[in-house]
Amino acid sequence: MIIALSGGVGGAKLALGLSRIMPPEDLLVVVNTGDDFEHLGLSISPDIDTVAYTLSGLANREVGWGRHDETWSFMETMEALGGDTWFRLGDRDLALHVERTRRLRNGESLSAVTADLCRRMGVGPRVVPMTDDPVRTRLLTDLGWLDFQEYFVHRRCEPVVSQLQFQGAGAAKPHPAFIAALADPALEAVVICPSNPFISVEPILAIPGVRDALMACKAPIIAVSPIIAGRAVKGPTAKMMTELGMDPSAGTVAQRYADLLDGYVIDHADMAEVVSIDARVTLAQTLMTTMEDREALAKIVVEAAATLRRREMHGLRHRRVP
Amino acid sequence: MIIALSGGVGGAKLALGLSRIMPPEDLLVVVNTGDDFEHLGLSISPDIDTVAYTLSGLANREVGWGRHDETWSFMETMEALGGDTWFRLGDRDLALHVERTRRLRNGESLSAVTADLCRRMGVGPRVVPMTDDPVRTRLLTDLGWLDFQEYFVHRRCEPVVSQLQFQGAGAAKPHPAFIAALADPALEAVVICPSNPFISVEPILAIPGVRDALMACKAPIIAVSPIIAGRAVKGPTAKMMTELGMDPSAGTVAQRYADLLDGYVIDHADMAEVVSIDARVTLAQTLMTTMEDREALAKIVVEAAATLRRREMHGLRHRRVP
Repeated sequence: MIIALSGGVGGAKLALGLSRIMPPEDLLVVVNTGDDFEHLGLSISPDIDTVAYTLSGLANREVGWGRHDETWSFMETMEALGGDTWFRLGDRDLALHVERTRRLRNGESLSAVTADLCRRMGVGPRVVPMTDDPVRTRLLTDLGWLDFQEYFVHRRCEPVVSQLQFQGAGAAKPHPAFIAALADPALEAVVICPSNPFISVEPILAIPGVRDALMACKAPIIAVSPIIAGRAVKGPTAKMMTELGMDPSAGTVAQRYADLLDGYVIDHADMAEVVSIDARVTLAQTLMTTMEDREALAKIVVEAAATLRRREMHGLRHRRVP
Repeated sequence: MIIALSGGVGGAKLALGLSRIMPPEDLLVVVNTGDDFEHLGLSISPDIDTVAYTLSGLANREVGWGRHDETWSFMETMEALGGDTWFRLGDRDLALHVERTRRLRNGESLSAVTADLCRRMGVGPRVVPMTDDPVRTRLLTDLGWLDFQEYFVHRRCEPVVSQLQFQGAGAAKPHPAFIAALADPALEAVVICPSNPFISVEPILAIPGVRDALMACKAPIIAVSPIIAGRAVKGPTAKMMTELGMDPSAGTVAQRYADLLDGYVIDHADMAEVVSIDARVTLAQTLMTTMEDREALAKIVVEAAATLRRREMHGLRHRRVP
């Protein structure tokens, strides 16, 4: 069994790769919900949706969000009616939000709704939200505190970020399947996908109990760098690092995860950073353009985990000491 | 100025005819909201929507509900996700419901939202809900009490109706523009459109103050029969009358409105019923197939009202005595 911690696009790509090189039911994808928000009265979970659409083959691979078979009548009409259109909701995508919202209001948990909707979309791996409790990522910017989607979509990541907050995280309980899997002797690896550390991975780590469970977990923890040669493949990771006073590099991301990491996969382009990284480094092509790229990177991650497990069996413990 | 009391399709057709033979802003359409319901978390007002779509030229004239330029991606996806699909919501139609629901939750009144959305759709006449308070038509049937849309759409009007109830009507306040218009000396006629008396017109009449204001109103009140030769043009009017122990005829509908009526427009086919009707009867072609039909019937109604007003000026009072 493998656990993948994922945000949106980058994480979903690697999760898809993993799901194609192993029995999909043995993959547990734990997804950030700090991006979740209410819009037009609908409960929207962008990272869960991106992961579900990606794993079911429904994703629009050109734009990195939504579905490939989408139509836009709703949005066109909403515009004519003077409604909010800054968050683009396709007609098919909308069905997911309307149905999820109805079921959440009806008292079902986000994870129960997610499991059922994923099953109906034909998603193989188990997809669970990091928590069923509300966590909302907020950013302190030059425009003041902004809700995540206000910053990310409405303001196109333009405001300068100086601080992040995961509202509600302190009172949230991690998803029980996540914690149970971390303690499962059959667990082979925890993969921190190439997602934005600040807004995709750290909300997961901010939930009480998650860090301890990761530290106590016997399986190796391996991250894949979301930064290649100082740039993020997608999204504001590099820009945000600069604004937060950090050097935007694969090494800096490893430092964020610090004592959690046993292994770290970086791009060949970042070979020079190996010396600065306090974990067993694997070089790879980390840019995932084709399906083959996704599978190849997934294989490298799985093999790196196997190596770390073998080394531990031979007394060559990996760095992390629970 | 003319007031039209309307339900869905039949009423909307005559309202459209009226709006084309007079300055549209002088027409006030008061619409039944007893059919309103919550579905998939959305506030849906079927009669208001039918009236708005009809008056703006957006209506689907083939099926009698929804828009002519509709797409169905949402509904298709909802079906794939296992959601409710018995109430057909097109992608464009959905925008109206989502935006209305958002604004209602935000504290706006149904009439404020309706006025603004109608303006944006290019509706000429003023369209007001009969009340801003919730009224819900329920029917006692051989399957027990059913909510209106459950009976009307989900069960296709198949259950046998024995009783109707307008839940909330007793505590509802009529829309102030409606009551003000009834007292306006410039009012030329109140037209009860050819809608189902039980489920479209009587919910309006059930609101405290409406009957009194109609009785006190100086302008003539004219109904158009929704029954032609014993059959309803559309919907369960005739079936319902039979189930309620009434003869399904134009005359029976007039008896329902009884002391409210000054004039009554029936189809040529129902000429034999004239003797049984206690109001000044006008014969006309009441089936509205083409736009010319709508306009011609509207003209006949307006002329019948003018005749009633002239007769009153000459001391030939119409029947109704306030």
